[in-house]
Amino acid sequence: MNGETARRTPGVRHQDTADPADPAGPRRMVALDRFEALRLLGGVSFGRVVFTQHALPAIRPVNHVVDGGDIVIRTHEGAALVSHTQQAGDPGVVVAYEADAIDPATHLGWSVVVTGYARMVTDPRDLARYRAALRPWVHRTMDFTVRIQPEEITAVRLVPWSE
Amino acid sequence: MNGETARRTPGVRHQDTADPADPAGPRRMVALDRFEALRLLGGVSFGRVVFTQHALPAIRPVNHVVDGGDIVIRTHEGAALVSHTQQAGDPGVVVAYEADAIDPATHLGWSVVVTGYARMVTDPRDLARYRAALRPWVHRTMDFTVRIQPEEITAVRLVPWSE
Repeated sequence: MNGETARRTPGVRHQDTADPADPAGPRRMVALDRFEALRLLGGVSFGRVVFTQHALPAIRPVNHVVDGGDIVIRTHEGAALVSHTQQAGDPGVVVAYEADAIDPATHLGWSVVVTGYARMVTDPRDLARYRAALRPWVHRTMDFTVRIQPEEITAVRLVPWSE
Repeated sequence: MNGETARRTPGVRHQDTADPADPAGPRRMVALDRFEALRLLGGVSFGRVVFTQHALPAIRPVNHVVDGGDIVIRTHEGAALVSHTQQAGDPGVVVAYEADAIDPATHLGWSVVVTGYARMVTDPRDLARYRAALRPWVHRTMDFTVRIQPEEITAVRLVPWSE
């Protein structure tokens, strides 16, 4: 497989349509800029917040809104995430946030990964606005509204090799 | 919103169909067992591997196969993940693996999060088998085959409140 890949010549189209494990054939990754990444994120309703819990990697699917370049989520889970961001003067805890839209058959689509500081939203007007826009998936008595300020955004589009 | 939630009585159906931000109405989370979780994972072709890179949370979408209760991925990225698992005698590095199928409009569906040890696959027969089953999304000259042995599985199905 590695040998096969090494023999490929850049710029030459290779059709792998005979490969049942990869019906879409070869594809390539196109890096997207910050603006396009946030536009794609804003166009979907949910993603996954990634954080560290008890020194282990943790991930939870949540819904989100993009507001002024920040990602805003409401979370019931991830108490570890919120406990850090509740302390005044704390710059926040670093989390990652991921959303994607990848076709299960062709694996064409896009993926956006944001890394940034997560902080509790405490302003009452902001809270009211976000709570109206973001309905939690499951009713619980306690939830937190968290803003993630992107420091680094890595976004790619997976397109057919021939495009 | 919290007040509204607190007034809900367990076991009583609440219809929120008038809420344009939540067209599916209330839903509830049903915990799934390990068997069902691995069955769901095996039924989809990709997920997201979550690991720690330079002390920061990192996540990459990848495709997978489920084999004998383990999750097997091929990855070009995540050199941090692989460098740890290459050392002999190393129990592996702890990662999380997530897959979900959540309806963008209703937010009904399922989510599976596996936490476990990631180790390089080095057996030539296993490598050949996994390489045939798992085609990387983008052709590169280098990739690693990694096996994640689940230690903990958290899986939920999001169903309508009335089910």
